[in-house]
Amino acid sequence: MTPEFSLIARYFTRPTPRAALGVGDDCALIGVADGHVLAVSTDTLVSGTHFFVDADPVKLGHKGLAVNLSDLAAMGAVPRYVTLALTLPSVDDAWLDAFSRGFFSLADRYNVELIGGDTTRGPLSMTLTVFGEVPLSSALRRDGAKAGDDVWVSGSLGGAALALKHMQSKVALKPNVFERAAERLHSPLPRIELGLALRGIASAAIDISDGLLADLGHICERSKLMAEIEWASVPLSPALLSVGPELRVPCGLAGGDDYELCFTAPAAMRARIDSIAAEVGVPMTRIGVMRQGDVGVVARDEKGELMTASAAGFDHFSS
Amino acid sequence: MTPEFSLIARYFTRPTPRAALGVGDDCALIGVADGHVLAVSTDTLVSGTHFFVDADPVKLGHKGLAVNLSDLAAMGAVPRYVTLALTLPSVDDAWLDAFSRGFFSLADRYNVELIGGDTTRGPLSMTLTVFGEVPLSSALRRDGAKAGDDVWVSGSLGGAALALKHMQSKVALKPNVFERAAERLHSPLPRIELGLALRGIASAAIDISDGLLADLGHICERSKLMAEIEWASVPLSPALLSVGPELRVPCGLAGGDDYELCFTAPAAMRARIDSIAAEVGVPMTRIGVMRQGDVGVVARDEKGELMTASAAGFDHFSS
Repeated sequence: MTPEFSLIARYFTRPTPRAALGVGDDCALIGVADGHVLAVSTDTLVSGTHFFVDADPVKLGHKGLAVNLSDLAAMGAVPRYVTLALTLPSVDDAWLDAFSRGFFSLADRYNVELIGGDTTRGPLSMTLTVFGEVPLSSALRRDGAKAGDDVWVSGSLGGAALALKHMQSKVALKPNVFERAAERLHSPLPRIELGLALRGIASAAIDISDGLLADLGHICERSKLMAEIEWASVPLSPALLSVGPELRVPCGLAGGDDYELCFTAPAAMRARIDSIAAEVGVPMTRIGVMRQGDVGVVARDEKGELMTASAAGFDHFSS
Repeated sequence: MTPEFSLIARYFTRPTPRAALGVGDDCALIGVADGHVLAVSTDTLVSGTHFFVDADPVKLGHKGLAVNLSDLAAMGAVPRYVTLALTLPSVDDAWLDAFSRGFFSLADRYNVELIGGDTTRGPLSMTLTVFGEVPLSSALRRDGAKAGDDVWVSGSLGGAALALKHMQSKVALKPNVFERAAERLHSPLPRIELGLALRGIASAAIDISDGLLADLGHICERSKLMAEIEWASVPLSPALLSVGPELRVPCGLAGGDDYELCFTAPAAMRARIDSIAAEVGVPMTRIGVMRQGDVGVVARDEKGELMTASAAGFDHFSS
């Protein structure tokens, strides 16, 4: 039995009653219900790029899965399965035990089965591929927004980016402010219940991983429309509101890692969306409207003037 | 448009007519035929562990996909989809262009659709997740071997391990011998057609990625049997046969990376398997038999004596 095999057996093998075959063979075998499709997404987190090398492994196990489940939430899919490819500099039992606890704690919450894995030696990183189930006709795609649709955002934005700036010594936060913001950065909760509730309501949806401007920009590109948002309406995180105003645009519009949902919906759905907000316990804020026009996002300030904020979002290769 | 998005758009977006939705949304959407299941497998290749940092990117694109498709072959599944998570130290257009050519050349050969991806900055590595389709009842699992079944191996073994030893300066091969062996190491061909032909014939199957002893050992563990193999029957690669005998056991029994199939089948299937060998153009060799007994692999030499070769195979954390 090779160490690879025993690592997976020891830390990452749990019963997978839904899968026809789980961890331990060349492949896992999974079926899907009639008329449903599997929604599939893959994301990598690399030490030094997406997290610090000394990051708490419990939170890392949570976050690695959370950011992937967030893509299923943005599709309106029910989480079903995940594969985990973990690259480690060495076998550290305490680290693996903590990582697997963080991972399975979130997996159990959403009844996600780990059906496959690979452990390899190298610089610390992880790639997860998640699988969710959704009726093909109700998937929340990026390309369905219509001119006149409202633009909505769940929860609040900018907390995660603010915490990151503190950890990069670009800003010095008070301990209680940092703690609140860091919770958003390290322990994001995928908006699964919200994504499911938005089936048949939202015309397009995306999760905010790279920043509101960048991610709403993807809806614009795919739907071939302009999004016009009111800066004063954008819901900023309490931590961000408690610090100087100069951080609000960079963290609230261009800052990533919040994993809220941004979606569009016809104006006729406003009352339904307010009800959903109450049902799932997540505030929902209308921040603008989709229009015909140049494809992309424009933001207006309190006076109605166009803002010149960079629409770069989180840039994987320049940040 | 972030650089991540444009990298995927530029190098890794091709039409995906089979998928309900391909690259460019939060998730891809895929369906599966009635009575069929998806076979899913994930594998990571890390620079410095699985390949040299200056490896030819065309071959790397091929190999990354090949080693993953090999898991589908070992399951008897038809390749359908793949996701690619690529971590790169920097954006190198020439490298990406070459890598994507190697990747798509093999993907096209097996009509595999790239349905999702992620590009991140960090030490060079890649994680692929492949999806194949198979009727649940004909999947080639590891746990189906029966006492009395023959043990078979496709092709020849040890060429890849021999090339690796040369590249690690543990042995000095003549240029023509190295060239032949290196082909096996850098450009393995997944035994897809063979895996499909073995549906209903093989009782258990695995691909040889970690070495015959280690991988046949997994069939033993899952099937709770002993495998007894005749060392003299193991088909060794022509390159390995052309060098000194001291390399034959370490490369032929314990050397990985050949990506041949090892499978078990009832003796009544011998003639069928010989016909399949001719049909798919891959030699097939009977090397032993499955027995009741201690779970694991034993090898006998020409005199029928038990050999003491290490059963470690390729050890991801000690090699």
